[in-house]
Amino acid sequence: MGLDDLWVITRGSIRGTGLSLETCEICPDKALCLYHMYRAVSLQPTQAAASSVLRLQQRTTSLRRVKLIQAFYTMASPNAAKFVKEEEVARGKWLSLNNITYTDPTGRERQWECVKRTTRQTDSADAVGIIAILKRMLKFDCIVLVLQYRPPMKCCTVEFPAGLVDAGESPETAAVRELYEETGYTASVKHVTPALCFDPGLGNTTVQLVTVEIDGNDEKNQNPQQKTEFIEVVLIPVDDLLQRLDDYAKSGYSVDSRVYSYALGLQPKTS
Amino acid sequence: MGLDDLWVITRGSIRGTGLSLETCEICPDKALCLYHMYRAVSLQPTQAAASSVLRLQQRTTSLRRVKLIQAFYTMASPNAAKFVKEEEVARGKWLSLNNITYTDPTGRERQWECVKRTTRQTDSADAVGIIAILKRMLKFDCIVLVLQYRPPMKCCTVEFPAGLVDAGESPETAAVRELYEETGYTASVKHVTPALCFDPGLGNTTVQLVTVEIDGNDEKNQNPQQKTEFIEVVLIPVDDLLQRLDDYAKSGYSVDSRVYSYALGLQPKTS
Repeated sequence: MGLDDLWVITRGSIRGTGLSLETCEICPDKALCLYHMYRAVSLQPTQAAASSVLRLQQRTTSLRRVKLIQAFYTMASPNAAKFVKEEEVARGKWLSLNNITYTDPTGRERQWECVKRTTRQTDSADAVGIIAILKRMLKFDCIVLVLQYRPPMKCCTVEFPAGLVDAGESPETAAVRELYEETGYTASVKHVTPALCFDPGLGNTTVQLVTVEIDGNDEKNQNPQQKTEFIEVVLIPVDDLLQRLDDYAKSGYSVDSRVYSYALGLQPKTS
Repeated sequence: MGLDDLWVITRGSIRGTGLSLETCEICPDKALCLYHMYRAVSLQPTQAAASSVLRLQQRTTSLRRVKLIQAFYTMASPNAAKFVKEEEVARGKWLSLNNITYTDPTGRERQWECVKRTTRQTDSADAVGIIAILKRMLKFDCIVLVLQYRPPMKCCTVEFPAGLVDAGESPETAAVRELYEETGYTASVKHVTPALCFDPGLGNTTVQLVTVEIDGNDEKNQNPQQKTEFIEVVLIPVDDLLQRLDDYAKSGYSVDSRVYSYALGLQPKTS
């Protein structure tokens, strides 16, 4: 495959889709692979991107490849959008309605309404969500979920146990503490995610999902006593999660989109 | 195991956890199993619940079992909470700040602040999110994700392609249309979820996740052209999703919590 082919395919990729993968597959030289160029130009700060593109240009004499790099360098990446300012439009006790001014990737100024929690302490994640797997001898592994009434939804929901992170608290500590308060179970942490967005078009709420394992054979997990009112704890066999979530939805519960996404991921691949 | 044991265990379960599973396992009679009682009493409308409990009472002569049923029937289930009224506190162009009055499961009146989209048409789901799997001969299956600047987050995000459902449109049609507009791919629908909540403590936004398959060998998916500005499409091998999401997070992207939850579900079970 010559540079001509590369140029045609790449031009298609820039305008359409498949930036990273298509190009990793056609380029034998990692340093010149579009995936790495792409990361250099649009994921990294401008300084690094510039020197990276410079290195690429030094290594090639093809006019077409230079054109390709330039096209890449100047394309309107989402990363070119910039925050300008944020103003409070209205403020309740817990929430505020804000107006954000930003510039889109072409430099045009735009407005966006959003909601903020007035209670947020720092720039860290607001909350932890806990994916708790209960493991017991001779029983199916179960996931621990909570049912609670949620006024904004006007109904009960099926969610991961969750809670706010206290000031100075690590997500691991917060997850173990919250799980104990909401369900009575003592657990050990297996995995922690980065801060993830909840509803990024609406607000800035973030959560870290903490996967924990509960040793159900341990004495202290035999008869767990929850400390929280108005939250019901349910145990659902992991292999049966999707079906049971559908049952809850049919019964009028609102199932949380993270729980359902997790259940979809659990499904065995069919092809 | 006698009724005495059942009563003790059940009392523990009511106060603590494991309502459904523990009790399904100890009760050989499905009609008297706590899981079904629980569903009858707290998941179903009162009429059905009442007649179901009546049937149970007719089938037993044990005073303890009657007590058990009564305890169950009157316990403060989250389902006993009730919506009272909702008032608008402030209104922007796209969002409003509302105050909800509701009664908790013990009947006490409480307040809750929440945010609503002023643009919502009906009581159906606001949006569809699309889990799109690209399948191609001799290549790894890839998931199609989008990168875009999200003003409330002040950064770019990694999300499922998504969009609002038009009035009268089915979630299937909306998903296929939105995927085509955002990525240029033509897909067929494999699975549709019920309406799922986004951030149920904050607002009433809901989404239906639609799983679709893209035939990458089909001529029309060879060179997909997106119709949307400022959205970048990326293809990520399904088996590599978690690692790649972590890479994005390290590079300053905010990864959507549904995408990450899906990736966590995909992880092979380790025990």
